Amino acid sequence: MTRVAVVGATGYAGAELVRILSGHPSVELTALTSRQHIGERFDAIFPALAGRVELICEKYNAGTLGDQADVVFTALPHQLPMEIVPELLKRGKKVVDLSADFRFKDPDRYARHYQPHTAGDLLQQAVYGLSEVYLDEIRGASLVGNPGCYPTSVLLPLIPLVKADLLDPATIVVDAKSGVSGAGRSPSLTTLFSEVSESFKPYKVAVHRHNPEMEEVLSAEAGTGIRITFVPHLVPMSRGMQTTIYAGFRKAARREDIHHCLQSFYDGRAFIRMRKDGLPPDSLHVRGTNYCDIGVEVDTRNNRLILMSAIDNLVKGAAGQAVQNMNIMLGLDETTGLMQMPYPL
Amino acid sequence: MTRVAVVGATGYAGAELVRILSGHPSVELTALTSRQHIGERFDAIFPALAGRVELICEKYNAGTLGDQADVVFTALPHQLPMEIVPELLKRGKKVVDLSADFRFKDPDRYARHYQPHTAGDLLQQAVYGLSEVYLDEIRGASLVGNPGCYPTSVLLPLIPLVKADLLDPATIVVDAKSGVSGAGRSPSLTTLFSEVSESFKPYKVAVHRHNPEMEEVLSAEAGTGIRITFVPHLVPMSRGMQTTIYAGFRKAARREDIHHCLQSFYDGRAFIRMRKDGLPPDSLHVRGTNYCDIGVEVDTRNNRLILMSAIDNLVKGAAGQAVQNMNIMLGLDETTGLMQMPYPL
Amino acid sequence: MTRVAVVGATGYAGAELVRILSGHPSVELTALTSRQHIGERFDAIFPALAGRVELICEKYNAGTLGDQADVVFTALPHQLPMEIVPELLKRGKKVVDLSADFRFKDPDRYARHYQPHTAGDLLQQAVYGLSEVYLDEIRGASLVGNPGCYPTSVLLPLIPLVKADLLDPATIVVDAKSGVSGAGRSPSLTTLFSEVSESFKPYKVAVHRHNPEMEEVLSAEAGTGIRITFVPHLVPMSRGMQTTIYAGFRKAARREDIHHCLQSFYDGRAFIRMRKDGLPPDSLHVRGTNYCDIGVEVDTRNNRLILMSAIDNLVKGAAGQAVQNMNIMLGLDETTGLMQMPYPL
Amino acid sequence: MTRVAVVGATGYAGAELVRILSGHPSVELTALTSRQHIGERFDAIFPALAGRVELICEKYNAGTLGDQADVVFTALPHQLPMEIVPELLKRGKKVVDLSADFRFKDPDRYARHYQPHTAGDLLQQAVYGLSEVYLDEIRGASLVGNPGCYPTSVLLPLIPLVKADLLDPATIVVDAKSGVSGAGRSPSLTTLFSEVSESFKPYKVAVHRHNPEMEEVLSAEAGTGIRITFVPHLVPMSRGMQTTIYAGFRKAARREDIHHCLQSFYDGRAFIRMRKDGLPPDSLHVRGTNYCDIGVEVDTRNNRLILMSAIDNLVKGAAGQAVQNMNIMLGLDETTGLMQMPYPL
Repeated sequence: MTRVAVVGATGYAGAELVRILSGHPSVELTALTSRQHIGERFDAIFPALAGRVELICEKYNAGTLGDQADVVFTALPHQLPMEIVPELLKRGKKVVDLSADFRFKDPDRYARHYQPHTAGDLLQQAVYGLSEVYLDEIRGASLVGNPGCYPTSVLLPLIPLVKADLLDPATIVVDAKSGVSGAGRSPSLTTLFSEVSESFKPYKVAVHRHNPEMEEVLSAEAGTGIRITFVPHLVPMSRGMQTTIYAGFRKAARREDIHHCLQSFYDGRAFIRMRKDGLPPDSLHVRGTNYCDIGVEVDTRNNRLILMSAIDNLVKGAAGQAVQNMNIMLGLDETTGLMQMPYPL
Repeated sequence: MTRVAVVGATGYAGAELVRILSGHPSVELTALTSRQHIGERFDAIFPALAGRVELICEKYNAGTLGDQADVVFTALPHQLPMEIVPELLKRGKKVVDLSADFRFKDPDRYARHYQPHTAGDLLQQAVYGLSEVYLDEIRGASLVGNPGCYPTSVLLPLIPLVKADLLDPATIVVDAKSGVSGAGRSPSLTTLFSEVSESFKPYKVAVHRHNPEMEEVLSAEAGTGIRITFVPHLVPMSRGMQTTIYAGFRKAARREDIHHCLQSFYDGRAFIRMRKDGLPPDSLHVRGTNYCDIGVEVDTRNNRLILMSAIDNLVKGAAGQAVQNMNIMLGLDETTGLMQMPYPL
Repeated sequence: MTRVAVVGATGYAGAELVRILSGHPSVELTALTSRQHIGERFDAIFPALAGRVELICEKYNAGTLGDQADVVFTALPHQLPMEIVPELLKRGKKVVDLSADFRFKDPDRYARHYQPHTAGDLLQQAVYGLSEVYLDEIRGASLVGNPGCYPTSVLLPLIPLVKADLLDPATIVVDAKSGVSGAGRSPSLTTLFSEVSESFKPYKVAVHRHNPEMEEVLSAEAGTGIRITFVPHLVPMSRGMQTTIYAGFRKAARREDIHHCLQSFYDGRAFIRMRKDGLPPDSLHVRGTNYCDIGVEVDTRNNRLILMSAIDNLVKGAAGQAVQNMNIMLGLDETTGLMQMPYPL
Repeated sequence: MTRVAVVGATGYAGAELVRILSGHPSVELTALTSRQHIGERFDAIFPALAGRVELICEKYNAGTLGDQADVVFTALPHQLPMEIVPELLKRGKKVVDLSADFRFKDPDRYARHYQPHTAGDLLQQAVYGLSEVYLDEIRGASLVGNPGCYPTSVLLPLIPLVKADLLDPATIVVDAKSGVSGAGRSPSLTTLFSEVSESFKPYKVAVHRHNPEMEEVLSAEAGTGIRITFVPHLVPMSRGMQTTIYAGFRKAARREDIHHCLQSFYDGRAFIRMRKDGLPPDSLHVRGTNYCDIGVEVDTRNNRLILMSAIDNLVKGAAGQAVQNMNIMLGLDETTGLMQMPYPL
């Protein structure tokens, strides 16, 4: 039984890791750390899990944790993981980091959008954990940089088409919408119920930090520089992310061709569900699951592709994909512990 | 592998049964019926379950269903089950009915609040499926009348105290609150999003049909007639039910005594979670689960008990308890298939 | 005092008309009709207005209504208004129709997207009621076709830029999001609370009927054919509409230039609020008001414009703009009766 | 034109005061203060009011404010008003305080539930601002302690019945439910959208600070000590409060008698709306208004009264009633500036 630990277990992504790992049949969750809840029982902080998780939140200590776990998930704000991951790797741990710290290959790009990188030497060995795309690389990785929620929702539908060179790269527009849990569990005015209810709005218009993350990956896959226009929006719901992507074609294409390209690319991958004709992806249909639902339409009058995806921002957009990556790193079936039945509503 | 069928699979309770039974390790879900979706794939109606349920909705036919299943769940509006259950029993099926048709012992009381009973002779053999209270009776039952959601949330905290004769039976007031899914999946003005959002209101004040159901059970347990004042309210949320119960004491009691009475009564029962001091039950903490969280406070200034419970109206209040009852009828551990990890949010 | 009537007063747009007209200082609301609530008091159907509206819903009758009102608002599903508006006009009434029946100049385009037009001869005299753009035409009109909610949110930000020929017309993508009240008050599965909560999804992807409406108007303003890609989405909120529009430039433009073009075009018009730098329009900020908030950003890396607007779909997107049009038709200040203070939350 | 100021204008109650006073025809809003937003335009903090409020938030200064305003609303956390109100009164200002600081007659009771009172000498002259009950006292007051939201929703239906000695005072149970804005605008974990959505829960069970406030007033009105059991609950909605009150009768009473007692007591008072038979008060029906809707049912089987009320916690529960009190203090009609039309949804 592989022993696993979650560093930063009391944020939303951390707590979701605890949920999944506690029910995972092939690992044992042995340690949780928290900066704010040291000494408290996890299920006192998240009473939904009363009777299901008995661990107590500890202060982070590399030595202690090294003795307790073989795999470590770091679910911390960016900048903190780069301070502790080198030590964990040195102790032979496998690490899945959910922050932005190990998502970039280029430390300068990271520095432009976050801050200088103090463990930049690890970026080359870190693998970008988009599970369906980088399966082979993840299999052999010691360090996985788990993708952001927006990039997951954008890259999964786009990469196969970009690789097949079907799209005009100068035309890609991404209009993405996220539930509020994506903003985390730290109290802030902008995520208060009364500020969010009946509110729908764009934010960080064309300047969101997930933009360079997506462009680096897309450009690498396309073999040429790709820039996108990316506008995130906040939805008055707790979980979920829906993304609508617009792009012109290299040459006229039919809906069936695009659908087929995606279907083939993801053949055999359990978490990609291609939506059938006429039914666009809906955040409610993937809530609480590790699925990414994808829909395709073609605006034939304008020769423009409309790609749609839906994920749960905390599962496929964070904790679920992180566990999927762990499964791959450990040689397990990638779906292990992630096939909890979806709720019909 | 026991074969099970769901009659009325496309309502909310029916769909929830499909979710649970599809993931149940000891049964095989073999047939679904629907009046409105005959010939349609279940996962086209509930796309959340795409790839997880492959069954097609059939028209109900006792003969066909009899060949397909050993246990039948009937999740239909009241009055319909009493027409089909006798035939199913005759064919040797075990039946769990989620309507009100088999919840009453007294056919006259049923008739007063619903309509004349056409299978009243079955009422004596039917067992009221409050799993934690009637375990022994359910074990040997062929027909279980699954409790209503409100009665489940009310009876679980009240019965142990009533049996112990701790409460003044003339003083019981029940103020209950339900999420909107309790009103079902049939389109109606009162459950439209725009009618419910920002709306909180009582309804069927002191005249709800769950009132006689509760009183029949409470009176039987107390060995004397008990009448309660019951006011349900509609909450702008999808799932969940929270109930606050007020009652005077026979003689002054301490919070600890009440807590202990409940704790002892439910000792060893996995789905009852007694909340610790100061943290009242919250619908969010039981969402999607079969738990009933119970909290106790005593207003010492007024010598009055405040009992609080929270359940998911579709799980412990309907489909989950129905499966729990099936487990008991089949001699399985009552938690089988019902321990999906709760979500932290 | 001008006497006004609302035909179809018990739908959401109709009820909103009743709210505004009841508080309007220059008109008297004299009659309401309803198909479903004949003989009922309006405030029994909408108890929020108890004590404020004393009218009883009547069956529609052209003669009676003609005696009661000088201005008639028709808030009915399309196809019904074309049957009654000719008679109302014949009787000398001024009419503001909130359906699609009088929005198109071209009866064939209407027929392609709705059904054959039985009063097509009125289309040339009908004025498209986008108040800020067609002020002069509305002033002299007897019949106004009130714009759809999506077209209002799209055309107000786009028209000034299209008229100034700043945009590449082949590049316009509109990603729009609407609250649930836009789907009306008729019970339907898709607008039930439990289907909408935690759900965000596109619908009628690139095939929505508001698309031809927008293209007809945009093309007329541009003096050349314009086609757009239009994808509406459903937001789990009751009221509100937020639209994000993407377009390439004819030649590189700065944010300031675009902002200035819009600011100049709408100079002096009370209901257009240009958002200041960095704060995108938010549906919550216009809730219950007749405002259209507009924001502008330029993705300079991609030389692409991002236009954002927010309206209340039932006010500026329906009833509010209809009253604004009436004000203009009657020679009143366009803001009369529409300046109720907005709520801070 | 009376000049008015709001101290603490950027909390939810303060902002709601700004909304109402900005639209009030008989006063001029001349100054706003804020501790956190000094120097910022109010409409930059609440963009809904862009173009409607041009004031800039100032640091509080008694001298400056004294020159700017004749009436001062203090919308601050308790303990702060008692530090500044004495000085304002000394300068001849009329003050309406929205905190708990001037709601109690008995400084010791205040001290037991809040902290020692440093301006206890003002408590006797302060008038409890329950507008419909203390009209005469408010008329001559210089200082009004504006009631809490829960007390308003409880006292308005209860006081007439208690005064008429119709109820058994030992039997009163109050089950109240509030929208989230009642918790204020300060960021906190418990009011984050993701913590509140799909959550319904009791809190501060039988220990809420509004309990002694209600008991002091009820006892004074009854002429005898009255104790109630009070349990507040949090509802996943932004605004609104619904309260259900249970009480036994002195002697058997009919629904009509109770209804008549209330109707008579509030005869001629515009903001009390007695609901007709069978339609319980709904928070949505009073949203954004100063109404208190009241409904009455009698559980005849148990000889128990069920009283129901609905208010908007920020309007009749705070800012609206505060302005109503100002109107009374200034000799204006109590409804002035408070009759904005309610929204049908």
